[in-house]
Amino acid sequence: MEKSEQFTTPLAFLGDSLGDIPSPAALAAYAHWWATRGQVISEAVDRAGTPWLRMFDRAGIRIDEVCYSPDYWTMLRKGYREGIISRVFEQNTVLPFYRIGFITAFHDPGVYCPYTVSLATAVPLEKYGSETLKARFLPQLLRTDDKVWQGATWMTEIKGGSDLGANVETTAHEQGDRWQLNGDKYFASNLGADLAVVAARPEGAPRNVRGLALFLLPRLKDNGELNYTIRRIKDKIGTRSVPTGEIELRDSEAWLLGDREQGVYLILEVLNISRVANSIASVALAQRAIAEATKFARQRQAFGKPIIEHPLLQQQFRERRHGLQLAMALACKTAQTLNAVWQQTPPYDEQYHLFRLLAHLAKYWTAEFAAQTCKWAMEVHGGLGVLAEYPVERGFREAMILSIWEGTAHRQILDGLEVMQRKAAHKSLFESLRPTADPHAIAKIEAQIERHLHLDEDEQEARAEKLFHDLAYFTAETLLKQNPLQ
Amino acid sequence: MEKSEQFTTPLAFLGDSLGDIPSPAALAAYAHWWATRGQVISEAVDRAGTPWLRMFDRAGIRIDEVCYSPDYWTMLRKGYREGIISRVFEQNTVLPFYRIGFITAFHDPGVYCPYTVSLATAVPLEKYGSETLKARFLPQLLRTDDKVWQGATWMTEIKGGSDLGANVETTAHEQGDRWQLNGDKYFASNLGADLAVVAARPEGAPRNVRGLALFLLPRLKDNGELNYTIRRIKDKIGTRSVPTGEIELRDSEAWLLGDREQGVYLILEVLNISRVANSIASVALAQRAIAEATKFARQRQAFGKPIIEHPLLQQQFRERRHGLQLAMALACKTAQTLNAVWQQTPPYDEQYHLFRLLAHLAKYWTAEFAAQTCKWAMEVHGGLGVLAEYPVERGFREAMILSIWEGTAHRQILDGLEVMQRKAAHKSLFESLRPTADPHAIAKIEAQIERHLHLDEDEQEARAEKLFHDLAYFTAETLLKQNPLQ
Amino acid sequence: MEKSEQFTTPLAFLGDSLGDIPSPAALAAYAHWWATRGQVISEAVDRAGTPWLRMFDRAGIRIDEVCYSPDYWTMLRKGYREGIISRVFEQNTVLPFYRIGFITAFHDPGVYCPYTVSLATAVPLEKYGSETLKARFLPQLLRTDDKVWQGATWMTEIKGGSDLGANVETTAHEQGDRWQLNGDKYFASNLGADLAVVAARPEGAPRNVRGLALFLLPRLKDNGELNYTIRRIKDKIGTRSVPTGEIELRDSEAWLLGDREQGVYLILEVLNISRVANSIASVALAQRAIAEATKFARQRQAFGKPIIEHPLLQQQFRERRHGLQLAMALACKTAQTLNAVWQQTPPYDEQYHLFRLLAHLAKYWTAEFAAQTCKWAMEVHGGLGVLAEYPVERGFREAMILSIWEGTAHRQILDGLEVMQRKAAHKSLFESLRPTADPHAIAKIEAQIERHLHLDEDEQEARAEKLFHDLAYFTAETLLKQNPLQ
Amino acid sequence: MEKSEQFTTPLAFLGDSLGDIPSPAALAAYAHWWATRGQVISEAVDRAGTPWLRMFDRAGIRIDEVCYSPDYWTMLRKGYREGIISRVFEQNTVLPFYRIGFITAFHDPGVYCPYTVSLATAVPLEKYGSETLKARFLPQLLRTDDKVWQGATWMTEIKGGSDLGANVETTAHEQGDRWQLNGDKYFASNLGADLAVVAARPEGAPRNVRGLALFLLPRLKDNGELNYTIRRIKDKIGTRSVPTGEIELRDSEAWLLGDREQGVYLILEVLNISRVANSIASVALAQRAIAEATKFARQRQAFGKPIIEHPLLQQQFRERRHGLQLAMALACKTAQTLNAVWQQTPPYDEQYHLFRLLAHLAKYWTAEFAAQTCKWAMEVHGGLGVLAEYPVERGFREAMILSIWEGTAHRQILDGLEVMQRKAAHKSLFESLRPTADPHAIAKIEAQIERHLHLDEDEQEARAEKLFHDLAYFTAETLLKQNPLQ
Repeated sequence: MEKSEQFTTPLAFLGDSLGDIPSPAALAAYAHWWATRGQVISEAVDRAGTPWLRMFDRAGIRIDEVCYSPDYWTMLRKGYREGIISRVFEQNTVLPFYRIGFITAFHDPGVYCPYTVSLATAVPLEKYGSETLKARFLPQLLRTDDKVWQGATWMTEIKGGSDLGANVETTAHEQGDRWQLNGDKYFASNLGADLAVVAARPEGAPRNVRGLALFLLPRLKDNGELNYTIRRIKDKIGTRSVPTGEIELRDSEAWLLGDREQGVYLILEVLNISRVANSIASVALAQRAIAEATKFARQRQAFGKPIIEHPLLQQQFRERRHGLQLAMALACKTAQTLNAVWQQTPPYDEQYHLFRLLAHLAKYWTAEFAAQTCKWAMEVHGGLGVLAEYPVERGFREAMILSIWEGTAHRQILDGLEVMQRKAAHKSLFESLRPTADPHAIAKIEAQIERHLHLDEDEQEARAEKLFHDLAYFTAETLLKQNPLQ
Repeated sequence: MEKSEQFTTPLAFLGDSLGDIPSPAALAAYAHWWATRGQVISEAVDRAGTPWLRMFDRAGIRIDEVCYSPDYWTMLRKGYREGIISRVFEQNTVLPFYRIGFITAFHDPGVYCPYTVSLATAVPLEKYGSETLKARFLPQLLRTDDKVWQGATWMTEIKGGSDLGANVETTAHEQGDRWQLNGDKYFASNLGADLAVVAARPEGAPRNVRGLALFLLPRLKDNGELNYTIRRIKDKIGTRSVPTGEIELRDSEAWLLGDREQGVYLILEVLNISRVANSIASVALAQRAIAEATKFARQRQAFGKPIIEHPLLQQQFRERRHGLQLAMALACKTAQTLNAVWQQTPPYDEQYHLFRLLAHLAKYWTAEFAAQTCKWAMEVHGGLGVLAEYPVERGFREAMILSIWEGTAHRQILDGLEVMQRKAAHKSLFESLRPTADPHAIAKIEAQIERHLHLDEDEQEARAEKLFHDLAYFTAETLLKQNPLQ
Repeated sequence: MEKSEQFTTPLAFLGDSLGDIPSPAALAAYAHWWATRGQVISEAVDRAGTPWLRMFDRAGIRIDEVCYSPDYWTMLRKGYREGIISRVFEQNTVLPFYRIGFITAFHDPGVYCPYTVSLATAVPLEKYGSETLKARFLPQLLRTDDKVWQGATWMTEIKGGSDLGANVETTAHEQGDRWQLNGDKYFASNLGADLAVVAARPEGAPRNVRGLALFLLPRLKDNGELNYTIRRIKDKIGTRSVPTGEIELRDSEAWLLGDREQGVYLILEVLNISRVANSIASVALAQRAIAEATKFARQRQAFGKPIIEHPLLQQQFRERRHGLQLAMALACKTAQTLNAVWQQTPPYDEQYHLFRLLAHLAKYWTAEFAAQTCKWAMEVHGGLGVLAEYPVERGFREAMILSIWEGTAHRQILDGLEVMQRKAAHKSLFESLRPTADPHAIAKIEAQIERHLHLDEDEQEARAEKLFHDLAYFTAETLLKQNPLQ
Repeated sequence: MEKSEQFTTPLAFLGDSLGDIPSPAALAAYAHWWATRGQVISEAVDRAGTPWLRMFDRAGIRIDEVCYSPDYWTMLRKGYREGIISRVFEQNTVLPFYRIGFITAFHDPGVYCPYTVSLATAVPLEKYGSETLKARFLPQLLRTDDKVWQGATWMTEIKGGSDLGANVETTAHEQGDRWQLNGDKYFASNLGADLAVVAARPEGAPRNVRGLALFLLPRLKDNGELNYTIRRIKDKIGTRSVPTGEIELRDSEAWLLGDREQGVYLILEVLNISRVANSIASVALAQRAIAEATKFARQRQAFGKPIIEHPLLQQQFRERRHGLQLAMALACKTAQTLNAVWQQTPPYDEQYHLFRLLAHLAKYWTAEFAAQTCKWAMEVHGGLGVLAEYPVERGFREAMILSIWEGTAHRQILDGLEVMQRKAAHKSLFESLRPTADPHAIAKIEAQIERHLHLDEDEQEARAEKLFHDLAYFTAETLLKQNPLQ
């Protein structure tokens, strides 16, 4: 079944969905490495569990070293060597990041996270950092050797990440050319990163989202001391290889990025990058689940034939593959739209707001598709599916991280609604889709949105889920028609 | 919010859905024990992980002891003391088993499994065992003290559980009043059980489902030696407290239950009991997830108020609660129908086939609802949801066991289709629902089924999922209307 | 072999070595509980590993709850109910604490630790606390119900515990009737204790051992907030049930105990209690190892007979049993001497210094005997000995904790030397032993010590190990002669 | 301190103790790899724990794959590439095996095990296998690439390994040019090996040690099926990276090695190789412990200076270093004597019996020294020593494996006694030592042995421990004098 190969191999499925691949051989070699070596490493790393934290050395010095297996480093450095970060700046496009990321996430959505937060550190540094800062730090992030620095994006605090405006308690006190940060970050991914971008509230700033600013914080002070400490690494259901945990900032030295009144925009720009990465990773994870289900269903016999030949399962495979194409179409369109706007600074143009709407639709839709597909692949395996020894059990666990990171469905829906309410982003969306859209369908969804936006505020929120679902589906279907995957 | 209490307390929600409770104080005390002591034990047991297997004692004697923490025994014996098995035979009704099970599964769906397989051992013994066998073994299963024997139901082998007719390789060789069994069971729950019912194929029997017979197999031979050995305990994503694993039967002594030509009926009767238990447990687990989400959403603040007051979340809570009522209505109707037929032996009457259809509908619908609700509850918790330290992470893992055990959705759909094709069980269903059903809706679904049953066989299978979904939903809605929960 | 029973049952071996048992039936019931129920719990707790720390509740409030299995509480509370702390004050003797402790430690040396630190909290509170403090806190520590408060003794910091005078960085700032403590404790046992005694340095005090004072620190402030936080629980090779870890004191409220110039004496008094407990636990653990080896060696056959009948092993058993008696004689003498001096306050009399020497000898000798005996018992088991599934593997791990806690051999030797150098404590020791000692042997060891004390200081230290070994052996042999165990 | 470097670096300490190193640069590169990369891998592997066993693939085929992390393979293959096995046959000397092994075991005594059992498979194959067998299998074992086959030596069964003559229940049934083996091996190291040498009892052979024969057993049958199955991998206190467990032989195909009456000699020859490896590994582990203690004691301050400058600790370091030299002298002499006799076949000459005595003395003495030194190094670390996060905790666990594997002290003593009783091997020993021995000391130990050998049999056994200790010490001291290490 030649057709199904397309659905079981990430490189084949990716094709040129994320733009022409300048050096296809390199990407193919990367994909081959993952299929033959990386995946085995990834499984061992997942099995061994979350890295551990060495807080003190034997001399009693606080060191906060996150201890991985050497295997992990082999796997992680592979991507940096491949240029997952550096190519973005060399080629002036974010698409290589998402292409390489898709291959990576097919095998390990967790390890795609450090790359994502590294890029999401480099971009605001490049856009908003002073020349001095850039000269000092950017080259470290763009290395492709073993000395590459990793980035991190630390926003959320103990009260929750949805309402950063109210919940960020970390303060920033100006002192000469630097700031001193004090506070605790509660969901901090890529603990131990060499450089982080951190949301904090300058002294005197208002206690709302406008009061936030974005800072650049290195791991070590100029004198070599730790600039932040790690309270603990958390035990998560998925992405076990990534150390996510809690950070303590105590008079930690940092530099302001951009204008202190515009912190919220910079934070959103950081989220743009990771939200698209989450969408790409979700599609990759869903493809992996379909690939595993395919492999199993070909092998497994029941009632005299491989179960993949049973009509109900065939039907489900058809639907999953179609769903995968929808999700891919939406994620890729979002990535390409980001590519058109990622260098904008406030005030933004309409295309930027269109991107924001697309990003919410894509994050929402792809994460849900990944979660449901991983669950389905587990069910295809029957009893074997729930055992730790086979790969679908892991996929199922990973999927929930993708559902929740970067904002749950609930958050995407409400933020997507807001960008329609405030920026009429749906109008740009419809303009872009109209040429290929089914005229009846587009008319229907346009009317549905218009009616919705005339409801009172609470009603708009209460009923937003179905609206968002319908809009995402319509968008994905239309995009797929525009640009059918092979 | 008085109303929501009903949704957060299992006893309140249960009400008299599973028949009058003869001694409500006892059930209330049981529920209280779980809320105050059992749940803490259950969490510790889940955290410590699957029990381990001591294969040999220090003298080198093979003993195959499944080693639990003493806490586990405290928790497990609580149910036996409460009469979860014994009341069924004392009161001649299976309803107490499901009532007590509902309370149990709200806190620990895993521990409900040993009870279920114990009942599913006792029932065929009581119905089909010789007087000698019954006299010897039944009283052990009905004890309520610490010496109670546990049962187990071991059917599935390495090639999979859906197509038992083809995949059971275990042979049975007659020898005097007993049989010698040889083979391996691959998904054997409640390893270490004192007594099991086991599917095997008598020598010379055909290699299809008619060739299977059901045997009663004690843990120890008359001479005190092990009658089966345990190859290993498996590492599952959920229900960690229950030892599920692999059994080796090597000249293991067993007694035939019933007629050797009717084994398949006996096996299905065993599944009837556990399929209903799976439905009840699914509803309980879904209720638990809603209860945890409620507790959290009341506590968590965002945008100036508890998130439970946000319109979109309120809407989702309303839908989840309604869904919970639908699931409960379907599960309880199924349990009550089982109660009317569980003592039948082949040939069965129409009500028995109606029960079978209901059981497939309920297993399918409730497990899916539980899985989706646990996923949703995790999302309500945001980032906290994926951490091992809070209870929703566990619920999510447990739910997938319920989705897969006793047959995945795929299996329920196809077997449900078959009972409509062969026994026209949908007709009895419609008769029973007609008095309260919406006339338009019932006409529509009846027509939909009729059309479906005229498709060619492959088409019937391929399109069965939507049909089954619609039928389950219609049935649940109508039942809920018939008998609204408080 | 009746004789060997004495060596395999803790109660039989204990006899009246630690004084008359006022209510032998209670102690026998306690021993029976351990043999039948406690040991099973203890094994499950060890297997499940160190308790975990819940730092925050779902509302984001820091709670620092140490999470045990319910089983652990069952086991732990058993001792408090038995009066392991309360009897000391009711009966005005520490002997019940060591008697009950011996039985406890035979089965679980780890759980004896919380009792020990609880007593070592109650004693200085009772001796040095103001009436107000005593009225408020002492009754909580002396409860025998589930509400009993636990104590803890937190001295050691990151730079090490031997040289507290230099290494305690925790400061104490006086504020009204209380003090504010700031610093980190690095090896803090019984994390989560309700009340702790803590070494700290009052502002302005010298940076040596005279500058230390002892403070009483409750877990909660008057307003219910946490008065200390727990940085982490550590992963230790043994005593897994006891949460040992790191404490952060940040403006933590505490009360000074006694005179601030005399802190070092109070700290040593705290150590007196635990050092004797360590000796008693070591003997108990060694007895357990011998008991396990006996059980195994009776069962195991080689060369045609049980290995316990092989001459070399018989010889080793004889030596181990004699060694056990020596260790017991030394530990019990030390406990009884403590019982004569535990209520003294500075300045102390000669018997107190004799006690100190005995305590060093006993801690050193018994811990070493326990470690070697556990190693030997493992070797008796051959290959089975290294497997986690049998009890000697655990004993071996536990023993190293006893070797190191309360000061390693190195520390005992040097401190024992010091009490001979400064207080001539060996003279009191020889006076007490002379009546029963072998005249030749006592003359020899006396001369050996005299010569030693005339060496230059570095030589005294360098050669101290052999001297201390010889003195401990001589003392134990003489004590055993004085008071042969049954 | 230049001197101490010699004690902290394995290559420096090894020097030419195991003969001239033909290509010192290669060994230095190997040592460097371990110090910089291997050790990190080894720590990660130890932390992640024992490999796991995948019994079935997703298709339900029994595969018994031992699953390691890729890191483990990197580490393991390093030694094969270095020629740890192949050089023995190329250079016709076992010394390279022990030299490379010493460097390996300094960092990871566990990984030295697979090499040892591989050599102990290759040697009897080379000596006793038919030309056909050799042509087929030997080249596989001598590969230095990733396709190298590993060996294994499976003797011990459930009743224990000391008395193989009585306890081997595995039977061998001749069938054409092969034999069918049936039985269970209980302590089988290097599970999953491609080729194993296995002790079994041909049908009709006597139930004593003369009835044993040695067989060569490949992992796969000619038809590709598994030739043995793995029952389970065990959880051991140390050498976690090596999969030790249980093997089930069921009509497993094997070839007889050598003459069936001489099996016991072949088994002993296998043990010769591993017993010496155990001695070499013990010295390496002890050196590692001293190196870790040195590093720590230089860093740690107490009483105003690094603790390595405290007189008592200095004295202990001196003693440990001297002890290390004694142990090395004994182990190396034993290895060199093996090198002179390893190609002998029965009947053996006197030097072979001298070797046997030396091997017992060395195994006994070095394992004990390693265990005590690891314990001491842990104590030097104080409280840090018992924490899983620092390396001495691991060394302590590893040491007990070395104490027990290849026969406990008890076994070495009795077997050493036997070779003196039956073969007067002590006489050869004294001849070889006399030239450099202290005349007084040699006379004394000779007389002591003569007296001992005239005691009655039970007395000889009962008192053998001291005799053996004295003889080992005398031998080691004399050897060290003969050939002082640098």
